[in-house]
Amino acid sequence: MERIGWIGTGVMGASMAGRLIDAGYALTVFNRTRGRAQTLLGRGAAWADSPADAAEGADVVATIVGYPRDVEEVILGQAGVLAARKPPRILIDFTTSSPELARRIAREAASRREAASGGRGEKNDGVAALDAPVSGGDIGARNGTLSIMVGGDAAALDSIRPILAHLGQKVTHLGPPGSGQHTKMVNQILIATMMIGVCEGLLYAHRAGLDPLRVIEAVGSGAAGSWSINNLGPRIVKRDFAPGFYVEHFLKDMGIALAEARRMNLALPGLALAEQLYRAVEAHGHGRSGTQALTLALERLSAANEPGG
Amino acid sequence: MERIGWIGTGVMGASMAGRLIDAGYALTVFNRTRGRAQTLLGRGAAWADSPADAAEGADVVATIVGYPRDVEEVILGQAGVLAARKPPRILIDFTTSSPELARRIAREAASRREAASGGRGEKNDGVAALDAPVSGGDIGARNGTLSIMVGGDAAALDSIRPILAHLGQKVTHLGPPGSGQHTKMVNQILIATMMIGVCEGLLYAHRAGLDPLRVIEAVGSGAAGSWSINNLGPRIVKRDFAPGFYVEHFLKDMGIALAEARRMNLALPGLALAEQLYRAVEAHGHGRSGTQALTLALERLSAANEPGG
Repeated sequence: MERIGWIGTGVMGASMAGRLIDAGYALTVFNRTRGRAQTLLGRGAAWADSPADAAEGADVVATIVGYPRDVEEVILGQAGVLAARKPPRILIDFTTSSPELARRIAREAASRREAASGGRGEKNDGVAALDAPVSGGDIGARNGTLSIMVGGDAAALDSIRPILAHLGQKVTHLGPPGSGQHTKMVNQILIATMMIGVCEGLLYAHRAGLDPLRVIEAVGSGAAGSWSINNLGPRIVKRDFAPGFYVEHFLKDMGIALAEARRMNLALPGLALAEQLYRAVEAHGHGRSGTQALTLALERLSAANEPGG
Repeated sequence: MERIGWIGTGVMGASMAGRLIDAGYALTVFNRTRGRAQTLLGRGAAWADSPADAAEGADVVATIVGYPRDVEEVILGQAGVLAARKPPRILIDFTTSSPELARRIAREAASRREAASGGRGEKNDGVAALDAPVSGGDIGARNGTLSIMVGGDAAALDSIRPILAHLGQKVTHLGPPGSGQHTKMVNQILIATMMIGVCEGLLYAHRAGLDPLRVIEAVGSGAAGSWSINNLGPRIVKRDFAPGFYVEHFLKDMGIALAEARRMNLALPGLALAEQLYRAVEAHGHGRSGTQALTLALERLSAANEPGG
């Protein structure tokens, strides 16, 4: 069984890595905060002091960290994956990150030669880097039911499908490097604008004196139906803002999508509105609430309280 | 079997009335344009020269017309349903119309006495008016799989459930008069904002060089999933703007929702943005295209052409 280097043991990463341990893979893990890797170490994973060390001699390295700058550091940094003496054959980044960075990583990974083999004329294709953001949340990570959106070399992807099968039900190859991230951006654009509708619809229902749960029941299975209204709608009604997905992470994603759209000369007024409203949610102290907390910004817009009132 | 007065034989109304004829009900129909009722007349429906005539002696009268002003005319007008000498026991309006008008109709209907019985001291509760907008489109109307959102007297609704069972799979009572219309407004708020996301997401996918159908396949069954992306998304990709639901009718509905929100002192920025974008679609000559034509307005925003350029 291949040895896998695993970098990033947050909520998502820890669940995903745990599933691979259960499946019999030998994992070497690195995480910025070692304490968060403790459970995995207790289940047999080896510890590495840097991303480069975790990558050393591993066939496949997986990363799932926070922000694009973290991705950049753990892969391209001084002690990053590509700095390993013997780098992996395949590098797969599950972080939702920038398509542009994904393309840069793929280029630099492809040109990476094993330092030890230099001059001996061995065939060396470099490292195949895949961008593979996921959707499905913590539950999907625990149950291995994630949807995985992959950009990069199709043959490299095919060669690790047996590993990915333990993590996700749906693994889709979307195209060259960056395509996985771009697809995740589409995913987030859909959710962002949809959430405005969910919150506005339920706010309207409340003001109109309707029973919002009955309304969700009446409209949720037809043309107005969506995962969001059926799953997050009831939480909004019950004032349950516990995070399935953090507002601050969603803001990161929307920021990436808006930056990419700007580069493509593309106006996305719905996404821009959503980003502004979510920024208000964060400003009100709800960055670590779930995305359904969007309703708080919309409610405030029409609240009776006035500045100085 | 009860005699039913049926007013309005457009695409939706004709299919719904046809199902009741098939189920054995005796229908008397009125439509502004008689030609559009011809098929129903050929199948045994009787013709009436006015809404009042269609209502005369009927136990139940159903209306499904175009705009709130049409609802007002066929129910409250000089030759309207409530002007019948012997008005029906129950009046059900399937039109998507104004909640405020629905409440006014319910009040006026309740106070309507049979002219003939005046002074004879007979028990007379007036006419029970139900507002019952539907969703599910022309296909739902043909197949009897509509979702019907009902406001008004619950006992009156229960007494006609056997009739409604031929038209819809899901009949939900939402509360007092106007509640059906309010619920339909929630339905339309959800769809309007969701459609912005669908169009922006697919536009982003196209610009990013992705295969949009593969993207829909990758994201459509997860947290970004919705009826809209899965059903209208592929039509957008194929440039199929044939109407499932007309832009101009959707604009009517959004106008009602925005007017009600204004009355409730409620700011709905997502709905307002959608309404403005759909107004642009109509301005470009696509009022009789399907709602998925929203993409044309968003594409134009980022098109290379400049005024005078």
